[in-house]
Parts: sequence; C-alpha cells; structure tokens
Amino acid sequence: MHDAPDHRYRARGVSSGKAEVHAAIRSQDKGLFPGAFCKIVPDLLSGDDQHCLIMHADTAGSKASLAYLGWREGLGDEVWQGVAQDALVMNIDDCACVGALGPYLVCNTIGRHARLIPGAAIAGIIAGYQRACDTLAAEGITCILTGGETADVGDVVRTVDVGCTVTTRLRRDAVIDASRSRPGDLIVGFSSTGQARWESRPNAGIGSNGLTSARHDALGHDYAARYPETYAPDTDPAMIYCGPHRLEDPLPGSDGMSIGQALLSPTRTYLPLIKVLLAAVPRQAIHALIHCTGGGQTKIGHFGRHLRYIKDDLLPTPPLFARLREVGNTSWAEAYAVWNMGVRLEAVVSPEIAADCLAVAQDCGIEARIHGRVEAHDGPGNEVIILGEGGEHRYHNPGT
Amino acid sequence: MHDAPDHRYRARGVSSGKAEVHAAIRSQDKGLFPGAFCKIVPDLLSGDDQHCLIMHADTAGSKASLAYLGWREGLGDEVWQGVAQDALVMNIDDCACVGALGPYLVCNTIGRHARLIPGAAIAGIIAGYQRACDTLAAEGITCILTGGETADVGDVVRTVDVGCTVTTRLRRDAVIDASRSRPGDLIVGFSSTGQARWESRPNAGIGSNGLTSARHDALGHDYAARYPETYAPDTDPAMIYCGPHRLEDPLPGSDGMSIGQALLSPTRTYLPLIKVLLAAVPRQAIHALIHCTGGGQTKIGHFGRHLRYIKDDLLPTPPLFARLREVGNTSWAEAYAVWNMGVRLEAVVSPEIAADCLAVAQDCGIEARIHGRVEAHDGPGNEVIILGEGGEHRYHNPGT
Repeated sequence: MHDAPDHRYRARGVSSGKAEVHAAIRSQDKGLFPGAFCKIVPDLLSGDDQHCLIMHADTAGSKASLAYLGWREGLGDEVWQGVAQDALVMNIDDCACVGALGPYLVCNTIGRHARLIPGAAIAGIIAGYQRACDTLAAEGITCILTGGETADVGDVVRTVDVGCTVTTRLRRDAVIDASRSRPGDLIVGFSSTGQARWESRPNAGIGSNGLTSARHDALGHDYAARYPETYAPDTDPAMIYCGPHRLEDPLPGSDGMSIGQALLSPTRTYLPLIKVLLAAVPRQAIHALIHCTGGGQTKIGHFGRHLRYIKDDLLPTPPLFARLREVGNTSWAEAYAVWNMGVRLEAVVSPEIAADCLAVAQDCGIEARIHGRVEAHDGPGNEVIILGEGGEHRYHNPGT
Repeated sequence: MHDAPDHRYRARGVSSGKAEVHAAIRSQDKGLFPGAFCKIVPDLLSGDDQHCLIMHADTAGSKASLAYLGWREGLGDEVWQGVAQDALVMNIDDCACVGALGPYLVCNTIGRHARLIPGAAIAGIIAGYQRACDTLAAEGITCILTGGETADVGDVVRTVDVGCTVTTRLRRDAVIDASRSRPGDLIVGFSSTGQARWESRPNAGIGSNGLTSARHDALGHDYAARYPETYAPDTDPAMIYCGPHRLEDPLPGSDGMSIGQALLSPTRTYLPLIKVLLAAVPRQAIHALIHCTGGGQTKIGHFGRHLRYIKDDLLPTPPLFARLREVGNTSWAEAYAVWNMGVRLEAVVSPEIAADCLAVAQDCGIEARIHGRVEAHDGPGNEVIILGEGGEHRYHNPGT
C-alpha cells in the first residue's frame, strides 16, 4: 500500500496489513492450494486423497472489548451472543470462500478476566454459538459444537477474548482457488448491510474488522476513564475514545439504530448465500470468493498474480461507515483499507454468470452489484484501484 | 472440595475448579462418551460411523505472561518456543488420554499487544510448534500445522496469548473411556520431572497449570513495577510478585536449574509413552488415563461414579513444587489442587498390567510408581484422598 493509509490504525497498535506476521510464517508450508483463500491440507484424518481439510481459527478481536463495554452500559446479554456469532462467522465465511459448505466442527475458546466477566457472560457466549448453529441448520448447513476451553487468565486478558476454530472437509475438485481469477472477470459485491433472509434484524455491516478504530473514533472520551480495562494503557490518550458519541445515540441515516447497536451488529454469515450460489452456477465459473476482512476492500489484492482489480461501482457507503469516516476524520484511502465499507463478500466470476450472482443475492435478501472487473497488470504483484466517493485510490499488493 | 483449598488462587482471579464454567456449559451435548477425558463427537467429516473425532482447544494460559517477562529479562527467544510447546501439549496430551494417537491437525492462535510483542516472538512461537511436531515425528506420531491466526488485539490482550486447537480421529472401539475406572484398579503415576527419552534437557515438571500462583509466589516484587503489563491491575498488590526470587536464582534442590528455567520448563508430552503403552498392554485393561491439569492431583475425581481414589504413595515432591509451597506458604491441600506436584499423567489400570506400565515408563526415561488405588465410595459423587507428606487431604467431586 502506498503512503501507509492505515496510520491511525497503527497508532492504536494494530496493523491492517500484517506484513510482520506474514514474514514470521513465511517458511510454513502453504498447503495443497497455495493461492486459495484459506490454507487447505490433505485429509490426514481419513486418509482419503480425493478430499482435503481446512482447520481455521479466528476471534472476535477487539469487538469483544466493545461488547463488554456495551454490556456494562446496559445493552444486555445479547451482546455476548452477538460476539460468539462474530467469532464463528469470521471462520466459516473464510472456509466458505474456498467452497466448503460443511459439516463444520466448531471448538470455542474464551479467555476471561474472571473478576470482570461472570458465568452469565460465558453462558451467553455459548448460547450465541448455539443460536448461530441453529440458524445455519435451518439453511441446511451443519455446524456442530465440539467443546471448548474457558480459561481464567486475568493476567493475560483485560476483559474477554472470544474465538473459535473450525474444521471442515471437502472434495479436492470442489475447491475454489482464488488464484484462478483472471483478466476479463467481473467482481460482484454483496452488501454487508440490510437484513438477509436468515437474519432477525437489520445489520449495520461492520463485521469484526476495524473495530479498534471504529469504537475509539465513534465513542466519547468519558468511556476512557470509566472503562480503562477496554484499551491498552500505553496508547496515546488522544486516540482513546476520542469521538462524539454515546452508545445510545442514534446512527445518522439509519432507521432507528443506535451507534452501539450498529457497532455491535453481529457479523453476517454469507454461507447460506454461497450455498445457494454454488448450486445455481457451474462452480468452475466462480474464480474466487473473497471475504473482505482484514484489509477491507483492498484484501482482494492478495489473490491471483499480475492482476489489477478495478472497483468503480461500489454500493453506496452505508450510514455506519459514513459516520465512522466523519467522526475520525479518516481518509477514504484508510477507510477502504480498514473497513469493508459495505461489502464483506466479493465473487470474482466469469461474466456469463454475473447476472446469476445478482439473482441469488436478491433471493437471499442481500443487495448486490457488479462493482468491478479484473484486468492484467504488468507490474510486480497486484493492484487494487478503488474509484469511489472519495476519488481514486490505488493499493499495491505483492500477491501470493 | 472442602474448605476452598484454592483461596490464594481465587484471590488472583483464577478458579482451579471452574464450577461457574461447568454450569454455563451444562446444557451442551456431552458427545459420544460423556464420561471420557475429552469430548468425543461422531466423525461428521467423513461420515464413517466406526470412527469418531476430537476437536480440542487450550492455551498456555498465564505461562505466556511469564514467558514475556523472562524474554524481557534476557532468557532469549527460546521462551517463545517453550510456550508454543506448552499450548500444544496441553491439547495433545488431553486427546491421548482417550487413546488418540494421531494424526493430529494443529491450528494455532496468537493474540498479541503488537507494541510489546514483535514479529520475532511470533516467529519463535511458530518455530516452537514446528520443533514439537518434529520431536513427535521422531517418535512416529504425526502432528501437522494447518495454519493459524495472529491477531493484533492490544485492547484485549495485555502481552500475548498463545493457544491452539487440535483435531484428531480414532476408532470408536479404541476409545479409553475414563468412566470405566472401578474398585480394585490401581493408579500409576508418571513423573512430570526428569528427562524423558525425547527431551533435550531436564524438566522441572510444572506444565501449564498453576502458573498464576507459581510466578506470583516465587518472584520478587520489583518485577511488579517493571512489568505491570504482566498481571491484572485490579489484583491486591500484596498478591503480585510477592516472592523472594529473581528469575536467575538457583532452584534449591535442583541440579543447577534457575527459578526462571524451572517455571518455564516446556510442558512435557507423554504422548510417546502413551503410544508405547497402548502397544504393550491390552487396551481394555487401561480404564482411564488422566492428564493432571486444572485441579492437579484432584482432577481424577471428575471421572467415574461412586469411586474413592486413594493416593498414598506419591512420588516425592519435586524441588520446584517444594519451593513454591514454601515461598507462598501454600497449604498442602491447595498445592495438590493447583499444581500437579510431580505427576502430570495417571493411568487407572487392572492390577495385572501395573508392572507393564512401570516397565514402559522406565523405557521412556520417566519415573513412575503405583501411587494409589480405587475403592467403592458410597456417598454422592467421588472422593479423592491424598495421603502424602502433608498428612491426609480429602476432596469431594460431584463426578460426571
């Protein structure tokens, strides 16, 4: 990326690009499909060489810290259910991007400061995992809780850390390998906002990425003194809860959603949409599915080789992201690199199935649009160009 | 347990018994073998009903906080390799207790405060996982890293949280179900100290449990001011690093090991021993394998029904545990409930194979002893009686 567009993010001790982490794991084996969205390994459990396995871990990140703050401020045990959904969906939606549709085995991990996080919160988190599994079951997707670990580690965790690991299996010939994207492909963007068919309320769309910036930029500084356990004490105080809002303030432009509800919207799962999509179109016409998590709208640049991803018809910036950009005075360049900005799933497809993608989205109650295209790029690595409300932004990615 | 023997542990925000957590997950399905040491689920991945799966998560707990302190005090990157081994062994040794011998798939998770934990530490942790896998490979045990997640979450994690999740598979008829322990069985204890055949240096034996107590009881208060990031700030200051030692002090009674090295001894894996044992004796004669983690020598009380576990010939208390008890003025009753006290694996077996267990241990370079027996108990739940250096201690457990 040029010009460190995530400098505010870095000032809070977070990197959206993770170059240092990628360097640390560079020597590790990349698995069967090195260019795929997730690491895929042989099915060593059954020994069947027609199949492969994915074992994948993620957490709700600093959204758990916000959930704690919201819970202390009276948002109720629902916040714990939401944060469990966040952790689960961060995993299963990654796996779905390589074409895995389950069954999913889920093992959850909770690290808590037991003086602050009572058993009722643990029960809420477990109930949240179960609720998310029940929702998926109604869509024909099997997701089973295999157990987990709750550790009392107040010397390690400030409030609570909520994560899980999933294991799933699929046929090797069913893998969607994101390295297959090619010039001429179209990019379909699927909204992270609105209310999908399987959701019980509207979603503000933020998912579980960029929450460190979002909550500090949006929320007011009185929270800093009242909840010092929700942030790193060595962060510049000027970057801590430096926004104008209380959790209960209405989100401008939304239909009655509060700032707190918006920031804590549980991460939408696109898995039911991906399941319908894979049944509706020839799988080989889907060249990549991109879960726009860390890196937001620039994440796609990690995949494929010598490609230019041009996005010039993004969905309108949803109210939460518009407000976040305003309150933090965040540049458009940084906003696209930290938040999903309203699209948390992209499909890179052959042009002939783009209309089918839109039809499937409509059936699922999810807004979608052909928001970009793929061209050849003759520099090293890949390029992502976003032509949006804030002008043109170019991001370079060395690729895989 | 009677008389809250872990009151010092609780004062530091940690519970060795986890009653609250057990209550929170009570409604969850217990799997195929509800009395087994780990939760075991059907093999939903391959659909083969002769097999079953275990997916299991654990972390290095507060040992990661000590590793950070040791690293800052000049113990080198080796501490990161050790803490990865801790997280891995906490998982695979649990799985081995139901008879699973791999292949193991391992997915690692690191949550870090990026300002304090550099990329070199991440690289050390990954190298530690790889080293542990290589050691197991030399013993014929397959352990594969499937990937992982490193999250920059300084608002959630004070220094670093190191954990992993493993998935493994075994035949259902090969499961060792700890509920099969019965009156007349003998209990073989396997030392957590010394140097096993597959280890490169002597081990002080503490594993990854009771480290919150151990490090605060052993280490001196000057660490409190210098490393406030290594403990919960709301803990009574009198309980923080309230011991006499610096990391480099020699451990009394040891052969030149320092306090720091002793506390950071990487958790021994007993998996190679369990593999040899299962090949040497009829599997059905092994009624339970107990990994003495949370709850230490009292953990066995969770398993079986209406049983009294009497341990009256424990191995001598190793130097580290003797010193920890001394410096913290910890009662014997609490010590047995928090630390493994020198035995981190127990086998509950038919008397006719007890001698074989001892022979296998000797081949592995691990001291072992028939340290107890099983009797019927007509009260509710189970009872654990420890007759040791500190007299007689009784622990009640409601059982499973």
